[in-house]
Amino acid sequence: MNGLSSLRCAVLGGGGFIGTNLCRALSGCVRSVRGFGRRKAFPEALDHIEWVSGDFLQVEEIAASITGCDVVYHLVTTSTPGSANRDMVADLQANVVSTLRLLDACRAEGVRRVVFVSSGGTVYGMPKELPTPESAATAPITAYGVSKLAIERYLALYEHLYGLEYRVLRVANAYGPFQMAMKDQGVVAAFLRRMQAGLEIELWGDGSVTRDYVFVDDIVEALKLAAVHEGRSRIFNIGSGQGRTLLDVVRSIERVVGGAARIRRHPARPIDVPVSVLDIRLAAAELGWQPTTTFGDGLSRTAAWLNETVEC
Amino acid sequence: MNGLSSLRCAVLGGGGFIGTNLCRALSGCVRSVRGFGRRKAFPEALDHIEWVSGDFLQVEEIAASITGCDVVYHLVTTSTPGSANRDMVADLQANVVSTLRLLDACRAEGVRRVVFVSSGGTVYGMPKELPTPESAATAPITAYGVSKLAIERYLALYEHLYGLEYRVLRVANAYGPFQMAMKDQGVVAAFLRRMQAGLEIELWGDGSVTRDYVFVDDIVEALKLAAVHEGRSRIFNIGSGQGRTLLDVVRSIERVVGGAARIRRHPARPIDVPVSVLDIRLAAAELGWQPTTTFGDGLSRTAAWLNETVEC
Repeated sequence: MNGLSSLRCAVLGGGGFIGTNLCRALSGCVRSVRGFGRRKAFPEALDHIEWVSGDFLQVEEIAASITGCDVVYHLVTTSTPGSANRDMVADLQANVVSTLRLLDACRAEGVRRVVFVSSGGTVYGMPKELPTPESAATAPITAYGVSKLAIERYLALYEHLYGLEYRVLRVANAYGPFQMAMKDQGVVAAFLRRMQAGLEIELWGDGSVTRDYVFVDDIVEALKLAAVHEGRSRIFNIGSGQGRTLLDVVRSIERVVGGAARIRRHPARPIDVPVSVLDIRLAAAELGWQPTTTFGDGLSRTAAWLNETVEC
Repeated sequence: MNGLSSLRCAVLGGGGFIGTNLCRALSGCVRSVRGFGRRKAFPEALDHIEWVSGDFLQVEEIAASITGCDVVYHLVTTSTPGSANRDMVADLQANVVSTLRLLDACRAEGVRRVVFVSSGGTVYGMPKELPTPESAATAPITAYGVSKLAIERYLALYEHLYGLEYRVLRVANAYGPFQMAMKDQGVVAAFLRRMQAGLEIELWGDGSVTRDYVFVDDIVEALKLAAVHEGRSRIFNIGSGQGRTLLDVVRSIERVVGGAARIRRHPARPIDVPVSVLDIRLAAAELGWQPTTTFGDGLSRTAAWLNETVEC
């Protein structure tokens, strides 16, 4: 694999949170970048990016998006941990079956490498080791994690059978600019928005649920490195390496917005593992990557972006 | 879980190789047994067994087969290691999606436990440890292995979310009476048939490919124990624990049939790992199971059965 500057890249799911950040960051430092997705969450942020509108469930539309590309970033996810459990068949069809069709399209189009964003927070399930290394047992308690793992395995199979290179980044809880606030994902974005507006926030469980929060610019840096990595490993944890409870997150946001949170409590959800913290030493050793944004800095930058942004 | 004798059992895939043996063995030692499948490979062998004809791809037909059952044995596989790689989407749809529909039907019908026959020869991929324990990394080099692993994970998820109990037996290379000889599975049956008939046998690679061959009566015993097991483990390797090369198998069959094999050689296939031998100590410790049939005895019993049987 040559240097990043020579690569023609496609970003599937380019209109989403990480995708929007990735498209913007790649632009100017790769030979070409093309975004693909059903919609752009923040269209003006991608004004200068080549864009193909399409549905990941339609194989012809996928194929059109990757023509002439060396590297395909696969950031599409059509479900959340909550929705996947409610309809596991739909989750499997939309994510895994569609990815198999994508991989066939990549073979046909001569793509050299697929970089897939997997889920550091769900593939391990209840962790037996903390922080959790890539070599730990994978025992997801959500269909979301099961289908991500199946995709990882099919990627390995396509490399073995057909030489299609791949890298997987198991990303922890991402946060930062361009994150949408959704009911069961994107807790930092949701809390920040509501607390800035003086609204109540909703907390599932007692607030002790512990996650590994990683700023999106750090993730984007890892995604760039994954496109050109030449080492033996294929799967890398990408997180901060540090655990933070939900209550810690609320307290940190209180400092950023300068006011106390009003909290509405709900019962804990069965899809939440109590703790998830990733061991990120492999990415440090092999990708030469490490996160450089503190949680406080990341929150401040996210809050500043929110203040400038009109909600879509 | 009560003793075996109180259980009402369904055997999905009951007309196949292991299924036919299992239905016959359960009959008389459980409260009731019902076979389900598209066809019976050896109809006369199942004459006295309650039978529901149906297609595993049709959810209503699955549901009809498990009504009133405590334990569902899931032995259906609609692909082989070779065919699964040729059409991974079809493999995923037919095996994994249909299993999810089965699991929903099991919840709706109040089934207590699902016992699933997984693939000890493919889920581990290239083994890093020999013999290979259940805790080893799973890195299949066939889509067949990927979909079996996905099913294992969904079983774990259904137990976690809904309390539907499960046990998985990762069965090594099975052989014995009622095995069909197919192009890329059932090598013992295929070789025995052809060598008894004085025909050439076909060998892929140099004959050094090493497998763990386990006699079907031993597998059936493990399946019975899995229905009533109360320990903590969920996944058990079921094999002989010993490796045997393809050439060893040919030599052993020569002794049974009393004549030298005529061998036609083909290039090695990318779907074959060079060696697969299972560590079976967990099944010994937790299920109280171990194989009791030597390879020579198993071959003789298979040959005797073949001599009595008119090929379907």
